[in-house]
Amino acid sequence: MAFDLNSDLGEGFGAYSMGDDAAMLDIVTSANIACGFHAGDPSIMRRTCELAVAKGVRIGAHIGYRDLVGFGRRHVAVTADELRDETLYQVGSLDVFARSAGDRVRYVKPHGALYHAASADRELAEAVLSAMAEFGGELSLLGPAGTELEAAARARGIAFVGEGFADRAYLSSGRLAPRSQPGAVLWPDDAVTQALSIARDSKAVTVDGGAVAVRATSICVHGDSPAAVEMARRIRSTLDEAGIPVGAFC
Amino acid sequence: MAFDLNSDLGEGFGAYSMGDDAAMLDIVTSANIACGFHAGDPSIMRRTCELAVAKGVRIGAHIGYRDLVGFGRRHVAVTADELRDETLYQVGSLDVFARSAGDRVRYVKPHGALYHAASADRELAEAVLSAMAEFGGELSLLGPAGTELEAAARARGIAFVGEGFADRAYLSSGRLAPRSQPGAVLWPDDAVTQALSIARDSKAVTVDGGAVAVRATSICVHGDSPAAVEMARRIRSTLDEAGIPVGAFC
Amino acid sequence: MAFDLNSDLGEGFGAYSMGDDAAMLDIVTSANIACGFHAGDPSIMRRTCELAVAKGVRIGAHIGYRDLVGFGRRHVAVTADELRDETLYQVGSLDVFARSAGDRVRYVKPHGALYHAASADRELAEAVLSAMAEFGGELSLLGPAGTELEAAARARGIAFVGEGFADRAYLSSGRLAPRSQPGAVLWPDDAVTQALSIARDSKAVTVDGGAVAVRATSICVHGDSPAAVEMARRIRSTLDEAGIPVGAFC
Amino acid sequence: MAFDLNSDLGEGFGAYSMGDDAAMLDIVTSANIACGFHAGDPSIMRRTCELAVAKGVRIGAHIGYRDLVGFGRRHVAVTADELRDETLYQVGSLDVFARSAGDRVRYVKPHGALYHAASADRELAEAVLSAMAEFGGELSLLGPAGTELEAAARARGIAFVGEGFADRAYLSSGRLAPRSQPGAVLWPDDAVTQALSIARDSKAVTVDGGAVAVRATSICVHGDSPAAVEMARRIRSTLDEAGIPVGAFC
Repeated sequence: MAFDLNSDLGEGFGAYSMGDDAAMLDIVTSANIACGFHAGDPSIMRRTCELAVAKGVRIGAHIGYRDLVGFGRRHVAVTADELRDETLYQVGSLDVFARSAGDRVRYVKPHGALYHAASADRELAEAVLSAMAEFGGELSLLGPAGTELEAAARARGIAFVGEGFADRAYLSSGRLAPRSQPGAVLWPDDAVTQALSIARDSKAVTVDGGAVAVRATSICVHGDSPAAVEMARRIRSTLDEAGIPVGAFC
Repeated sequence: MAFDLNSDLGEGFGAYSMGDDAAMLDIVTSANIACGFHAGDPSIMRRTCELAVAKGVRIGAHIGYRDLVGFGRRHVAVTADELRDETLYQVGSLDVFARSAGDRVRYVKPHGALYHAASADRELAEAVLSAMAEFGGELSLLGPAGTELEAAARARGIAFVGEGFADRAYLSSGRLAPRSQPGAVLWPDDAVTQALSIARDSKAVTVDGGAVAVRATSICVHGDSPAAVEMARRIRSTLDEAGIPVGAFC
Repeated sequence: MAFDLNSDLGEGFGAYSMGDDAAMLDIVTSANIACGFHAGDPSIMRRTCELAVAKGVRIGAHIGYRDLVGFGRRHVAVTADELRDETLYQVGSLDVFARSAGDRVRYVKPHGALYHAASADRELAEAVLSAMAEFGGELSLLGPAGTELEAAARARGIAFVGEGFADRAYLSSGRLAPRSQPGAVLWPDDAVTQALSIARDSKAVTVDGGAVAVRATSICVHGDSPAAVEMARRIRSTLDEAGIPVGAFC
Repeated sequence: MAFDLNSDLGEGFGAYSMGDDAAMLDIVTSANIACGFHAGDPSIMRRTCELAVAKGVRIGAHIGYRDLVGFGRRHVAVTADELRDETLYQVGSLDVFARSAGDRVRYVKPHGALYHAASADRELAEAVLSAMAEFGGELSLLGPAGTELEAAARARGIAFVGEGFADRAYLSSGRLAPRSQPGAVLWPDDAVTQALSIARDSKAVTVDGGAVAVRATSICVHGDSPAAVEMARRIRSTLDEAGIPVGAFC
């Protein structure tokens, strides 16, 4: 079974750009594309979908809070109903561009503050999954294993794909160590090592030097700086050289 | 063949409401539902679609400029590509709510300043029709006959439905007389008379007291005040009493 | 010393209206005017300031989260720096309209979710007060007594004005009883009684039938429905008849 | 009398950045700072004002259409009243940050599509000037000479500062040649030459190789790419070496 690399793409807005999407689409196998709430606009969604399809990369809806100025990184106290409706809206709006480009939305990944909130809060997780069920079309959910998101997906029989992080140390609980903790950020060589460890052995390092099991068949890589793109490239080539088949999960 | 009554609905935003949607959905046969650009939000789109389907009213995407503060009434100099992408985005986002409610988006009607701009400018009309063709699904276009919108629809083989106005006098050219012109607004009894005239005889009055042919199988009625709702009700009952079958065009 | 009545005004946006500002400006002595973040736009701000000045009502900046679709009622996890900057921006933008109308911004009142967050969180309270200090001009702060907002105001030597609620029962702690609790909403006659009790005796009823001290020299009255306007009118006339001088606090 | 170099700064939004403001503030003498409508947010406005004051650069309000996704580059059919109110709002919101940084807003420059619209339309020009007069405080207007903006400024007795462009050829009418015309863009050496020509001789080249008078005491330089920053630096050093005193106009 293939191991997936995913990245957050299509995050520009109007005249603003963010990251090097073209470079990343040569590296990753799944593209989390912003849908106009925390980032993205219709023309960027079209271009990113077309580029993804041209390069054989799978398209996922990167759903976020409706908070452009905060880039979806600040928690917004949405109700479950609002989140369900905003999720359905975002998936629906991206799907038309994915279809126009010749594919369709294959999966959903919550972004930023919503990623964390829906991982910890079953009601929010249910809201996301409820919208996915309404949308239909065999969507998968990409997110952190062992969370409310996974539980809600499994309860509904929606395919769940665990995601790991190459550049972050974990707590022994299996959660990410907060960035503020010493040793929480692995960069640069340790990130490559950890990516291989997660992909081959389902293990990550803990912030105190131990190891912890991480159920993941995808790793999130970033493209927001030339160094980040280069790191993504190293991770990809390291997996390739280790004989780990790299491919989309859906 | 049935004659249609359409109305602009779902035009609230968050805590803001606009018009009496529930009352209008008992009167009209086609609902032009805002898609979040000039008005509307995901939760309002859901509720309006559910109510429309429950009452047997057809759902159309009421696409508009991305100008909430201007309510889509101010021209925005979008490029044709932007308009095509924004049209596709809006139709796609409404369609998921229409489907979730048990139907689908059946037609597109441009709103406000876009209605006028795309009627007069072939490039903008093409942008709207191009997005409709991409979306597929046998969408019709609702708009004023004899315009670039109609020409662009016919050129693509997309069904075009002409729309008339009950409460406005026309110029002899078949265009609406500007509101500023004396006699341009027909209210209240003359509006009922004109609705019947358009539906039965395809004729409207001109601002100088003559008559002009109007190709329309739908009339737009408003619900933004109690008086407007009452007018819509009178028009509906007048058509019913005249034995004109009232029903959606699609 | 006079007792103040304040109300949230200028809460429309573009084509959307909210409440009957003109009626309320005949009743209240202080106008909390939205500044374009949770509600309001430049033209509404101008009109509301002009009307307030014409009627001798004091102008306050009703600052809120940048969340129009949520009307500022949902918590947004802003940083303290963002809140300070957004507060300064909002006060500055309203002040030019207040000055153009012949007065100036006299006070600040946080709106909705920010009202609650800044009452409970000293860092957020400090952010608001820090922006007020930067702005200068002898601004007062209007908000609930016994909170971090009051503490932060007093620490900086900024005048603090306690606010009470006529239509809500309190807990014995002096906090408002949650709306979900039986007996939490006082309407209609009990609200008039409580307004008088707060204004004359600095006492409110508790949800279990007792009494609690409330330090308030202003009561917030609403105008979002004809019944609410009528209630505001009754409260005003009850205070007048009781011989309590009603006037702005600044 | 000094010759001024101005640049559009503070054009980021939330997580999005645009151009190298710090580099440009070492080169220019006047900073046109976005006010949150076409670009900019409160925290960026604060930082840009602080940096400008620290480097002795004058602050101007770069007012634009309320069209973030279009970056203010698309015409929006605002009414004169809306434009007046939006201008006042933007100037007021920037002024508090300028004052907090130790200076104040010294001038106004319309941005993008508004720059062109208000140059050609007296009613829009009057709207901008009317807001400036309301604001008071000895604001100057920076814009193209020989336009409705200049006429409206002079009619009100508001100081007008003419602006020229280094990297664009002119028509013999004194207007800029459209970019689409061959020879319309001067880059790179010709831009330096033209900057010197405008500053020293009040002359620019026309697209057909002739010369035309340009009344300008400021040139607009861009910082949206490393090449643009380098060009701005060359223009500055060329003026310095030619003994032309470079300094703010106010």
